Amino acid sequence: MTKQKTPLILVSNDDGILAKGIGSLIDFVKDLGEVVVVAPSFPQSGMGHAITIHEHIRLDKSGFYGDIEAYECSGTPVDCVKLAKHFILKDRKPDIVLSGINHGSNSSVSVIYSGTMSAAIEGAMEGIPSIGFSLCNYDHDADFEPCRKFVRQIVLASLKDNFPSHTALNVNFPLVKEGEIKGIKVCRQAMARWQEEFENRKDPRGRDYFWLSGNFTNLDAGEDTDEAALAKGFVSVVPCHFDLTSYSVLARVNEMMR
Amino acid sequence: MTKQKTPLILVSNDDGILAKGIGSLIDFVKDLGEVVVVAPSFPQSGMGHAITIHEHIRLDKSGFYGDIEAYECSGTPVDCVKLAKHFILKDRKPDIVLSGINHGSNSSVSVIYSGTMSAAIEGAMEGIPSIGFSLCNYDHDADFEPCRKFVRQIVLASLKDNFPSHTALNVNFPLVKEGEIKGIKVCRQAMARWQEEFENRKDPRGRDYFWLSGNFTNLDAGEDTDEAALAKGFVSVVPCHFDLTSYSVLARVNEMMR
Repeated sequence: MTKQKTPLILVSNDDGILAKGIGSLIDFVKDLGEVVVVAPSFPQSGMGHAITIHEHIRLDKSGFYGDIEAYECSGTPVDCVKLAKHFILKDRKPDIVLSGINHGSNSSVSVIYSGTMSAAIEGAMEGIPSIGFSLCNYDHDADFEPCRKFVRQIVLASLKDNFPSHTALNVNFPLVKEGEIKGIKVCRQAMARWQEEFENRKDPRGRDYFWLSGNFTNLDAGEDTDEAALAKGFVSVVPCHFDLTSYSVLARVNEMMR
Repeated sequence: MTKQKTPLILVSNDDGILAKGIGSLIDFVKDLGEVVVVAPSFPQSGMGHAITIHEHIRLDKSGFYGDIEAYECSGTPVDCVKLAKHFILKDRKPDIVLSGINHGSNSSVSVIYSGTMSAAIEGAMEGIPSIGFSLCNYDHDADFEPCRKFVRQIVLASLKDNFPSHTALNVNFPLVKEGEIKGIKVCRQAMARWQEEFENRKDPRGRDYFWLSGNFTNLDAGEDTDEAALAKGFVSVVPCHFDLTSYSVLARVNEMMR
């Protein structure tokens, strides 16, 4: 973007257009450019990089954010970005895609499951500077105010011309009070896993059903990870790409296939 | 695994348990170990790494594959792997997770959207050697027979002890006749994009709805990519990891955030 132009800011999320987190994000950035919101009609947490191909998609204008142009979409977070780019904004390319603020952490391997980050990664795939924001608080009524200053700082820095191409920033906020945030740390994704536990229940007709639950385990003692930064009260920023190639094992796999 | 033990082979897919592709995969590997199938009840293409957290999940035993232990699951491909690991197989860790054979390509950036590959990546996250197979043919009644020899070769190679940890292989088969497949090439993921086109239609009540469609564009002239291998009639094998950190831009993003 050129500095003279008002930046076009596309905002989405995965908790749905009515979530408090996206409302806060819109509020934090609305004076930094022209904001257009395209977000799911309903919560879409855990949707990963899902797209809707077996169903049609609905898109409706929403008056929920007053003067701000907003649309609710029946599809996934990735659908929202695709529809925004190719249908709503047409030949106007956003200067930045912002997603969130998610109610709950998307640090470490959670990035893979995250609809919030998938919207941002879809932006990166389109060659747009993109950022996903998440607060380590799953509460419906979480207080996002401590994030305000850092959201603005990160967005302003990302609107400058040196944002790396085809990159999405995974930004997580620690669950601490405003004055307690120590600063921003650029990190790598921690190696961790979810230890699932399925709750097996019986419906009134005696048939089994399951609820997914689980516990997060950090397997990574590194001091340079997002988990380490968050544990110390820093905002973690992990630059993410979408090339899944594991370059370090190419030679070994080549050997295996002989 | 030890060579003495019969390998435990977990099979899933994203086209659903009744798809021809998973039937072929089961047929190709059933003599290589003990096969357990946990696959979606319905097609789940494009589900990416989605998990089901807002809905409960159903799991039912299926007699569709005769003597082979099989379950259909109402959830996503990733749910299938999680349920298999934590509920069905309990303390029996699979020696390998196989997913597919997908009806359609999952090469290049399609890996991000692919339910087939997400099932494999979930296996990799659990520390299990994992492979997603896809044939570059979207036909419901595609002929998977040309894949047989290569599926067996790749699975047998992967059951040896040198499979790289936390890795999933993304294997794509070119759409050519059996004798025309030139061999196997280990590759990197090509840089490419989907150029979406949304078809905007009106329902009988005059309300808009949309269908996602699009065209794939390869932006990568590299000879070492999966796209290049497939175009020349090779089976492409891309080893994938789930660390999305873009290490090459860490310093630059650090600079931006100062």
